[in-house]
Amino acid sequence: MKDNAPLAAVVMGSESDLPIMRKTAEVLKEMGVSYEIKISSAHRTPDETALYAKSARDRGIEVIIAGAGMAAHLAGAIAANTTLPVIGVPIKSGELNGVDALYSTVQMPSGIPVATVAINGAANAAYLACSILSIKYPEIRAALDAKRAKTREILLEKSEADARWTDPEERA
Amino acid sequence: MKDNAPLAAVVMGSESDLPIMRKTAEVLKEMGVSYEIKISSAHRTPDETALYAKSARDRGIEVIIAGAGMAAHLAGAIAANTTLPVIGVPIKSGELNGVDALYSTVQMPSGIPVATVAINGAANAAYLACSILSIKYPEIRAALDAKRAKTREILLEKSEADARWTDPEERA
Amino acid sequence: MKDNAPLAAVVMGSESDLPIMRKTAEVLKEMGVSYEIKISSAHRTPDETALYAKSARDRGIEVIIAGAGMAAHLAGAIAANTTLPVIGVPIKSGELNGVDALYSTVQMPSGIPVATVAINGAANAAYLACSILSIKYPEIRAALDAKRAKTREILLEKSEADARWTDPEERA
Amino acid sequence: MKDNAPLAAVVMGSESDLPIMRKTAEVLKEMGVSYEIKISSAHRTPDETALYAKSARDRGIEVIIAGAGMAAHLAGAIAANTTLPVIGVPIKSGELNGVDALYSTVQMPSGIPVATVAINGAANAAYLACSILSIKYPEIRAALDAKRAKTREILLEKSEADARWTDPEERA
Amino acid sequence: MKDNAPLAAVVMGSESDLPIMRKTAEVLKEMGVSYEIKISSAHRTPDETALYAKSARDRGIEVIIAGAGMAAHLAGAIAANTTLPVIGVPIKSGELNGVDALYSTVQMPSGIPVATVAINGAANAAYLACSILSIKYPEIRAALDAKRAKTREILLEKSEADARWTDPEERA
Amino acid sequence: MKDNAPLAAVVMGSESDLPIMRKTAEVLKEMGVSYEIKISSAHRTPDETALYAKSARDRGIEVIIAGAGMAAHLAGAIAANTTLPVIGVPIKSGELNGVDALYSTVQMPSGIPVATVAINGAANAAYLACSILSIKYPEIRAALDAKRAKTREILLEKSEADARWTDPEERA
Amino acid sequence: MKDNAPLAAVVMGSESDLPIMRKTAEVLKEMGVSYEIKISSAHRTPDETALYAKSARDRGIEVIIAGAGMAAHLAGAIAANTTLPVIGVPIKSGELNGVDALYSTVQMPSGIPVATVAINGAANAAYLACSILSIKYPEIRAALDAKRAKTREILLEKSEADARWTDPEERA
Amino acid sequence: MKDNAPLAAVVMGSESDLPIMRKTAEVLKEMGVSYEIKISSAHRTPDETALYAKSARDRGIEVIIAGAGMAAHLAGAIAANTTLPVIGVPIKSGELNGVDALYSTVQMPSGIPVATVAINGAANAAYLACSILSIKYPEIRAALDAKRAKTREILLEKSEADARWTDPEERA
Repeated sequence: MKDNAPLAAVVMGSESDLPIMRKTAEVLKEMGVSYEIKISSAHRTPDETALYAKSARDRGIEVIIAGAGMAAHLAGAIAANTTLPVIGVPIKSGELNGVDALYSTVQMPSGIPVATVAINGAANAAYLACSILSIKYPEIRAALDAKRAKTREILLEKSEADARWTDPEERA
Repeated sequence: MKDNAPLAAVVMGSESDLPIMRKTAEVLKEMGVSYEIKISSAHRTPDETALYAKSARDRGIEVIIAGAGMAAHLAGAIAANTTLPVIGVPIKSGELNGVDALYSTVQMPSGIPVATVAINGAANAAYLACSILSIKYPEIRAALDAKRAKTREILLEKSEADARWTDPEERA
Repeated sequence: MKDNAPLAAVVMGSESDLPIMRKTAEVLKEMGVSYEIKISSAHRTPDETALYAKSARDRGIEVIIAGAGMAAHLAGAIAANTTLPVIGVPIKSGELNGVDALYSTVQMPSGIPVATVAINGAANAAYLACSILSIKYPEIRAALDAKRAKTREILLEKSEADARWTDPEERA
Repeated sequence: MKDNAPLAAVVMGSESDLPIMRKTAEVLKEMGVSYEIKISSAHRTPDETALYAKSARDRGIEVIIAGAGMAAHLAGAIAANTTLPVIGVPIKSGELNGVDALYSTVQMPSGIPVATVAINGAANAAYLACSILSIKYPEIRAALDAKRAKTREILLEKSEADARWTDPEERA
Repeated sequence: MKDNAPLAAVVMGSESDLPIMRKTAEVLKEMGVSYEIKISSAHRTPDETALYAKSARDRGIEVIIAGAGMAAHLAGAIAANTTLPVIGVPIKSGELNGVDALYSTVQMPSGIPVATVAINGAANAAYLACSILSIKYPEIRAALDAKRAKTREILLEKSEADARWTDPEERA
Repeated sequence: MKDNAPLAAVVMGSESDLPIMRKTAEVLKEMGVSYEIKISSAHRTPDETALYAKSARDRGIEVIIAGAGMAAHLAGAIAANTTLPVIGVPIKSGELNGVDALYSTVQMPSGIPVATVAINGAANAAYLACSILSIKYPEIRAALDAKRAKTREILLEKSEADARWTDPEERA
Repeated sequence: MKDNAPLAAVVMGSESDLPIMRKTAEVLKEMGVSYEIKISSAHRTPDETALYAKSARDRGIEVIIAGAGMAAHLAGAIAANTTLPVIGVPIKSGELNGVDALYSTVQMPSGIPVATVAINGAANAAYLACSILSIKYPEIRAALDAKRAKTREILLEKSEADARWTDPEERA
Repeated sequence: MKDNAPLAAVVMGSESDLPIMRKTAEVLKEMGVSYEIKISSAHRTPDETALYAKSARDRGIEVIIAGAGMAAHLAGAIAANTTLPVIGVPIKSGELNGVDALYSTVQMPSGIPVATVAINGAANAAYLACSILSIKYPEIRAALDAKRAKTREILLEKSEADARWTDPEERA
């Protein structure tokens, strides 16, 4: 991975998406992946969003993560302007629990895919970005594998402890 | 209404939307509204779609009707690039009965509205366009009012006839 | 636009819809569009609602915005009685997150369209009304264009600032 | 029950609803309930629909059954204009499997109820009308009870026969 | 209506449904309809529920209102055991917003209808019961008509007042 | 397992459910589980259904499988009358794709569970019945284990063969 | 039932499921069924989960209850590795009200059934486990029957008391 | 890209998924990406599926595409056993239009992402795989860019032609 130029771009349509999308940045940081954060809207700044997507690969970006809510067009608008892998995070906002954002993100037409994660799945968007980068950057693969192993270990330890509870009242 | 320059634009993302969107054109023609038809995709030809929307008002277009299916971004992508009224027709395609297209079309963020009609509601998109144009063009208002009156009359005639059926078997 | 006679009518079925529909009035005011507010119910005062709709165009109204929840018939009941453009705001109330109101508003039969916006999309209903009026009133077009440009500018400024955050912890 | 003046009214918004609503008439006929059939639309003939509902009780009607699809306002529009019991049949039409009609029919505001039956439940609308009339007309109660008993008997006979199948291949 | 024997029965499957179903009782009381309240469960006391339904008509009950949540079988279980009109109130409980109760109540098989009202529509269940009873009891019809007129009047008064608000800030 | 007295009961509300429920019988037969088939309706023959459920355990039945569509109360009505394990098969019928039957079957109140399988999952209902019986009858466990192993083997053979297709056109 | 070796296993994918799944343990304890609790994840510790399922029958387990949320694969992953009866509890977590977990649990392919209970139906999962064990263990059948009778009695007592409320205001 | 060892793996749970998943193979072939096809089931051959996933990276696979229907666990089961990027194709099968498969595929827990595409979006799964590989293989990037350009060109040509249709009857 080149010095410190960002490999990943984290884009969101509005500052109000930051409390969710911050988790993407946190995981990328933990995994050692350099990234940039960008607020750019498919509907309010369409030209800038298109330009940002078009220029991303040449600027060294290798994966783009876009989070948006409601009629969530951001990930699709970016995917329409680059052949880089684009990950979409459907954000719950408005009244439909994020189902609107999920459908608007995942049901893309043939030729312009968006790699969609769970509603509000900002952390998983980062893990998916790391999986993608792992095919090229051994150190990201190593970080991912180490994280996976550690998560497993923690769960196994809990599980050992828990195997002894036969009485739910013993724990509160 | 100027000679024959189109007042309405009927846009669709793919030729496969034509069997539905043709009804828009048919109603516009019946109402005497000049129009143009354009195939332009939010995802496959994003630059051309943006340009088309940006230039529409200056070319004399006063209302745009956009039909698209699945993650239906077309109406929103057009609305992002013009302050003309944009009518969205969610088209049923794919496996979700058009609910995906409905949500992707109607759940627009504040400031960039799309006037959404029923799933596959291409005829109504044209009637809505006529309502909009009717505030400026008395002849379109007259055509709309006449159509409305005629529809009512036909229904009343049927209703008169039907008031006599007390036996459903008498009709097959 | 004539002196101060209202161009837009904002109708709602019940006073309880006012916290949502107030945003329609606020945006219309900001855009310089004169309006009136009316409480009228498709179910509790059907005759008055029908009369209100029938007389609207002659009183100078050019666009009607109707907000209602649950089996939201208000916009449709108005559209049945005028060929003016009618904008429907599905309001979330009751237990179905507004999906009931969305379906009751958008799935209108052929010939009687309602221009539907997002669930609780009262602000966008006003922007859509302005788009419609913009085809006739240059000053409304100018206000809309100015608003659009300003929104874009604000977002771009934020985006500039935000492009530097590479560490999500720097912001809380 | 007076000579032959109809006790029940079967209303539908369009002739295309007849294949479904015919079942209502058939069951009413079988149960010996006099009825009339009326085509009247909440959206295309709103004044006539309101008048029809307002005058129904005085004409001797005691229960109204209204079938409609999509943004199914018919039953609600009738209920808004009479305090007679109104039964709504949500009809499947359009792309949403009748869920739009179900929500538009059942989610009525307080004070204006519609007695809703299943999607396309036209036969049950008639049985419900009979239940309602049965509180006043002993002969309708008797017809209903007899029908219920007969249905039960037929099922029990089948059940007796079927209790012997232990091999599904024996029946095709 | 006989002295004080109840005409209406309000049944619910569990005491936890009382906060919703109390509204049914309140409206019945306001309309002058005598009623009884019964807790009886389709699943926990199926025999008592069946007996209650079977004996209802002979005890003078003329309409039964049943409220239940989740897999709401109560109204259907009652309807299976009487030919009286049965009104079902789908109650929101559990995690599905009452859609489970709505479908379990409204989608009844042919021959055993349940008159379904909105999710948590306990007040409307009472108004519907009054409409049903109104075909036989003129005093209930009068009470319903008076209530309808009063509701209308209150709304019209509000509407008069509200027609003057052109500034939403004038009201908070 | 006693000579030939049925261990499993396959109940359905109507003969029209037989094309689906026949698969339950076929799998039970293949697994060597004796069974009886019964048509009994929660709504049309409620007393017989209750009696059938109440007497099932004493007649030697150890698991009951009930299939029903729409407001599918059958499995719940049976579970209300026995503490035997009751498996519910939501059957697709009517207009809601079986979601109504799924919710009506699975969302049971505390104390009266129904073991629900997939919509139209009649074969799996039989496999589940076998799993339940397998805790007591070693020969049923053996039959299940053998079937599982065979299914696996067939799939692995196909998989071996298929591992070689790198060209989809080679297969049609 | 052997001394104290657990007959039932309660498995959950994460410690965060414990507040829901604790109810399973509480009911099992009340019914006198020995059990063990295990935290094991289909996704984070897939090998351990598979091994746990494969070895369960030989360790004396006769029924497994698995609770999981979102893309709830746990019950299915266990069912894939044992022919014991597996009960799945779809847990509400994330933004989709548990519908995701319900579909992921109940819609299993042929041959690998999961006995699914209501969303968050952890208590009913235990009652279902008891029903299953009741075919082999008379003391569990007795405990279940006693519990059923007691629940019925409590409800009937309440019902007696409540039959007198004719005024909802008498109770708060 | 090494000689001919497959870079992509296309996995499906059953041969019945082949008519959909074949499109993945066709697009990969067109883009010049070597691939292997594997039938392996999360439920019927869980051990083999786990082993396949665990060994994939060492065998040179860099992206895995998994298609499955109903409670679609396949992509998740693979993602649980590798840190390679895993793309999930929810396949429509059974009665729920593929919504069950969509939720089961996309709603993955934190740490184990699945890159989900549209229901039946098998072609897009291949394009997404190409986007992922394009960050490492310039020839795949070139193939993708060329395809994108060609699709755009074809659409623009159509659009040119179509801009002239002002009469829908001219085309059939």
